[in-house]
Amino acid sequence: MTDLATAVIAGDRPALARAITLVESTHDADRDLALALIQRLMPASGGALRVGVSGAPGSGKSTMIEALGVALVDAGRRVGVLTIDPTSARSGGSVLGDKTRMEELSRRDDAYIRPSPSGRTLGGVARRTREAMLVVEAWGADVVLIETVGVGQSEIAVAGMVDQFLLLISPGGGDELQGIKRGVMELADVIVVNKHDGELHAAAEQSRAEYAAAAHLMRPRHEGLSTPVLLASALKRIGLNEVWDAIEGRHGFLAADGRLARLRSAQASDWLWSEVREGLLAEVEADPKASAIAKLREAHVADGTAFPPRVAREIVEAFLDRK
Amino acid sequence: MTDLATAVIAGDRPALARAITLVESTHDADRDLALALIQRLMPASGGALRVGVSGAPGSGKSTMIEALGVALVDAGRRVGVLTIDPTSARSGGSVLGDKTRMEELSRRDDAYIRPSPSGRTLGGVARRTREAMLVVEAWGADVVLIETVGVGQSEIAVAGMVDQFLLLISPGGGDELQGIKRGVMELADVIVVNKHDGELHAAAEQSRAEYAAAAHLMRPRHEGLSTPVLLASALKRIGLNEVWDAIEGRHGFLAADGRLARLRSAQASDWLWSEVREGLLAEVEADPKASAIAKLREAHVADGTAFPPRVAREIVEAFLDRK
Repeated sequence: MTDLATAVIAGDRPALARAITLVESTHDADRDLALALIQRLMPASGGALRVGVSGAPGSGKSTMIEALGVALVDAGRRVGVLTIDPTSARSGGSVLGDKTRMEELSRRDDAYIRPSPSGRTLGGVARRTREAMLVVEAWGADVVLIETVGVGQSEIAVAGMVDQFLLLISPGGGDELQGIKRGVMELADVIVVNKHDGELHAAAEQSRAEYAAAAHLMRPRHEGLSTPVLLASALKRIGLNEVWDAIEGRHGFLAADGRLARLRSAQASDWLWSEVREGLLAEVEADPKASAIAKLREAHVADGTAFPPRVAREIVEAFLDRK
Repeated sequence: MTDLATAVIAGDRPALARAITLVESTHDADRDLALALIQRLMPASGGALRVGVSGAPGSGKSTMIEALGVALVDAGRRVGVLTIDPTSARSGGSVLGDKTRMEELSRRDDAYIRPSPSGRTLGGVARRTREAMLVVEAWGADVVLIETVGVGQSEIAVAGMVDQFLLLISPGGGDELQGIKRGVMELADVIVVNKHDGELHAAAEQSRAEYAAAAHLMRPRHEGLSTPVLLASALKRIGLNEVWDAIEGRHGFLAADGRLARLRSAQASDWLWSEVREGLLAEVEADPKASAIAKLREAHVADGTAFPPRVAREIVEAFLDRK
């Protein structure tokens, strides 16, 4: 692990790929090695501007990420691109798919693109993606873009690990089609209405005005920093400087006044206790007595006849009794 | 406890008050009795339409709750009114304050108003409020209104225990004043712009149009059921029938197609596992070895030098070693 860590920190690409493969592994033995590896990489991590990118299917996330990535690499940055997609185990072809979708970026030495790890649960996929982010930072990435494929709570998971959250909007077709998933809109640091080109040019401007009005009705993500709503075309590479300037400007502002440090500190602390809870829960589920009680009583809880705090106590006491 | 439970189910008001006082107690011995009591009351609980009421300070929540409560009692319903206010331990005068604010309702036999339990944490206050709700239902309430005083995450806590979530809006003064806390707007089942009377009449209509437009841009809380945005004056008791019809109509619709049952089932199940996690966490925090490691390592986690999943494993292993 020491050799692998050293190679990653030295910027070695094959070492980076091996390290992330290890981190994504679901085998218990690999997990121990991965924990040791990442601990060694921690001092070299944390140096990137971390940006989450979300939006409804068809809003142009991949095109936008590639466009931003290419511009950033051309400007001398080193860029990591990750994806959270809890359905990826089922889609099968996502490895090839990603490389074809971001072909131009994938050919740049200073860009590293990784498709989503597969996984049974969102929590597991999110954790592995977060760990891959630390590894990519140790490799030298100074920008990390994390795409969410917008399934369920994946946006909230991504918001918990990034510095800035970019929400991409497709100009309004029907309102129903546009429906932003509950809770996503007010996670956003920067909102971008895409496809400001060709026949959607006017529709994009109309959507921008609507989203700006809606954003105005909500408390912004950070006090005193209103949420910009911008126009862009990822396809035609228009407006991308303004998008990036908005992201980087906010990031600099929050870094300067200490709020970025507090955000990251809170994110790390939440991650710690979330892992403690999940670790304990896994032990309870693996405990024969406790899990027997859970199975027996869960239906009564669900139908309202058993009182949840009391059943919880039964489960915890059965678990602790084993000592 | 059997006698107390019987008296509550028989509709005895003093018994109801004693039961809730027991539930709110923070003494460990009382906790055991409270768990036993509520388990006995469970079969008689669950029969109310549960409505959360939220809104910025000054939006008129207490006036609205009293107005709705009086109308419901006059229509033959039995109404419980609860409050979640995690700051209540500090405000001291909230008991008197509530009775003065809802004087008319407090004089009705078929209404029961309880101020917020005090508590150190939101989680504790929310749990005690939820348990009080079960007790009030066993007493015979067929409507329960739960007010959130809008501090931090209390809206999310309330949304996790009610059937319908009502968001009250004050007509827009400055936009900054209006700022709806992140995440609250899209929790709403029904949005009501209040103070549609006197000098705010026109402003209320303008706000209604803005919120209707914003609600249209978001996925509704339940697929296929758009989020109504209504006008009312709690003070002049105008528009309240429409508000209640909207709430009750949605409730009936969701009850009929099974979604209400699924919502309550999921809420109860989430409560169970949340209590299991918190119970386990409390045991870890009380464990000398595990809490020593946590104290030692937390600062390293917060500053990004220690890897949270690894520290989590250290804490869990130290805890389990005690057996």
